[in-house]
Amino acid sequence: MATVINKQVLLRDYVTGFANESDLVITSTNVDLRVPKGSMTVLVKNLFLSCDPYMRNRMRKPDPLSPATAQSFTPGMPISGLGVSKVIDSGHPDYREGDLLWGAVGWEEYSVITPIPNLHFKIHHTNFPLSYYTGLLGMPGMTAYVGFYEICSPKKGETVFVSAASGAVGQLVGQFAKMMGCYVVGSAGSKEKVDLLRNKFGFDDAFNYKEEHNLVATLKRQVKILLHPQNKIKVIAFSMSIKPIKRFSLFSRCFPQGIDIYFENVGGKMLDAVILNMRPHGRIAACGMISQYNLQNPEGVYGLSLITYKRIRIEGFNCFDYFHKYSEFLEFVVPYVREGKITYVEDVAEGLESAPAALVGLFHGKNVGKQLVVVSRDLE
Amino acid sequence: MATVINKQVLLRDYVTGFANESDLVITSTNVDLRVPKGSMTVLVKNLFLSCDPYMRNRMRKPDPLSPATAQSFTPGMPISGLGVSKVIDSGHPDYREGDLLWGAVGWEEYSVITPIPNLHFKIHHTNFPLSYYTGLLGMPGMTAYVGFYEICSPKKGETVFVSAASGAVGQLVGQFAKMMGCYVVGSAGSKEKVDLLRNKFGFDDAFNYKEEHNLVATLKRQVKILLHPQNKIKVIAFSMSIKPIKRFSLFSRCFPQGIDIYFENVGGKMLDAVILNMRPHGRIAACGMISQYNLQNPEGVYGLSLITYKRIRIEGFNCFDYFHKYSEFLEFVVPYVREGKITYVEDVAEGLESAPAALVGLFHGKNVGKQLVVVSRDLE
Repeated sequence: MATVINKQVLLRDYVTGFANESDLVITSTNVDLRVPKGSMTVLVKNLFLSCDPYMRNRMRKPDPLSPATAQSFTPGMPISGLGVSKVIDSGHPDYREGDLLWGAVGWEEYSVITPIPNLHFKIHHTNFPLSYYTGLLGMPGMTAYVGFYEICSPKKGETVFVSAASGAVGQLVGQFAKMMGCYVVGSAGSKEKVDLLRNKFGFDDAFNYKEEHNLVATLKRQVKILLHPQNKIKVIAFSMSIKPIKRFSLFSRCFPQGIDIYFENVGGKMLDAVILNMRPHGRIAACGMISQYNLQNPEGVYGLSLITYKRIRIEGFNCFDYFHKYSEFLEFVVPYVREGKITYVEDVAEGLESAPAALVGLFHGKNVGKQLVVVSRDLE
Repeated sequence: MATVINKQVLLRDYVTGFANESDLVITSTNVDLRVPKGSMTVLVKNLFLSCDPYMRNRMRKPDPLSPATAQSFTPGMPISGLGVSKVIDSGHPDYREGDLLWGAVGWEEYSVITPIPNLHFKIHHTNFPLSYYTGLLGMPGMTAYVGFYEICSPKKGETVFVSAASGAVGQLVGQFAKMMGCYVVGSAGSKEKVDLLRNKFGFDDAFNYKEEHNLVATLKRQVKILLHPQNKIKVIAFSMSIKPIKRFSLFSRCFPQGIDIYFENVGGKMLDAVILNMRPHGRIAACGMISQYNLQNPEGVYGLSLITYKRIRIEGFNCFDYFHKYSEFLEFVVPYVREGKITYVEDVAEGLESAPAALVGLFHGKNVGKQLVVVSRDLE
């Protein structure tokens, strides 16, 4: 009984170009549910796995020219990521059977881990969905918190643009920015997501980037409807993709005065369009550039010489550098979640078998909200 | 006698592509050497004019999409820049005949200016060449000072790369970095400039970027010469462009361990190569991107998604935001100059007629050191 079957998700081989489901293989092995006493290891049962864009970079062949980037997965071995787990057996004095934790685990039903501070966290607040520790209360939450408050240096009244805005991180950045009194616009890749931004997350404006032909103009867009002397409607300025609008409304949208803060999740063409629309002393928090991760030849960014004139700061960051602030983050965010002032949308894939499609789907924008995989709902 | 001829340099028309001498026209007008009392204006005789890369951007047609960038010159009017001047007549209570100042003036023999704090400065230290106020003791000096000490956050022992390193700003950044105990490498566009970097400015290493086919490898370059058991020389690693080297020497050059700080003066391909070679938590001070200013289609930068993994900060800055610190800068730099611990190389063009060629020459790297134009050496 101590040995059970352990389903796993392996990387078939290093990936070039767009990742496919077939790059990941479901397999089974056996696992002993006991770990040696005093081994400092812990055997966990995985409940939820987090699908995150950075994982694409770990599928890449290691690049000797860029040793500082993400550590590659090993072909033929289970991939790893962040997840929520329950301790089954422990050889570590700080963990005991039944403890819940989140942190680095394999993509498998059971993992043997060696808990590492700031990489594995015990879960104390259990009056929220446990899956939130893959998102709102986990790494994406910390990323939004650190990226917005530390990297963007926001001030009340500033204008904020968020790309991939309905995603695991973006939906929180938008809500944080509204709480701070900023004007916030988000971009996403479907009508459903744009509606979420406007109606659920409280963004002031949102657009579907796939429907925009000129992102520079879209970001600058301002539409004013004035009553003409003959009571005809006159559109003063508009971008190509504005839909017919109600009579007698006054619209003023996106960033006619420019962008103070850009929370960058996508890279490529969008980054270029944003730089053109940035205001002087603007800040760009480079959280990630998902549009580039699957390209064999990444897109160029052409407008960088503007950052000198505009005094723009572009800063890459990784929330793992800030996990000493994790408890500070929980103290900040938990009351808002409890009071319903922060909301969170998840996209839940059921079962480890669905994990490859869920992960690959991220890169096509198939997820609506935080993508995660349920490995087991069985807390026993 | 109060009216004299005033030679001027006009912009013929907005420039696209590479600027040519013929885009600038020498002309003459008359100027009254007296200004009305109480007018708050000052008539100055220009002694030295500063040729600066940003001036190319002022030759461009104004771009309504980027109103925050440099203000364009007006075709048919004298261009303007920074210069060193002597007051001939003053309608301003703070200025009197004979005062020396540096700041914004027209490209002409005489200018009527309205002095503006932090844009016009009286010259108090006159025991240096007055031309230094176009460079070492003027805007380029402040740019190097602010860019290196404020934007780059340097620490002793860090590795620093400077492009356009023999130019008005770069030669100072290299010397500041050495004073701080950093390891410093510079790039420039000729053997003469590379020799200056090594032998005059004290750079630890330098290369001619025009002779390098693979800038990524060049920046990473490490050459080790070991004595083989049979006393044969064995080259462990080298980049393509290494010249034959002396026997029995041990070479270790450029950045085998990566770059902590990049002082960015050129942009384009060099920026891309640097990003690939940056160390985690590296900083890039974007002082300017001269390689891009004359291109109708700027080069793309393709490696930006690495800045997230490497936690790189890229920050554009303009020394004019820091001119409240100008006296602090002088207090810092003047003793070093006096003691010969900081040196400065100028490239001097004689006469206003030579000004168009001098300015345009910047964009072809013809200048060796700070490019300036002598309008008059007559201090009377």
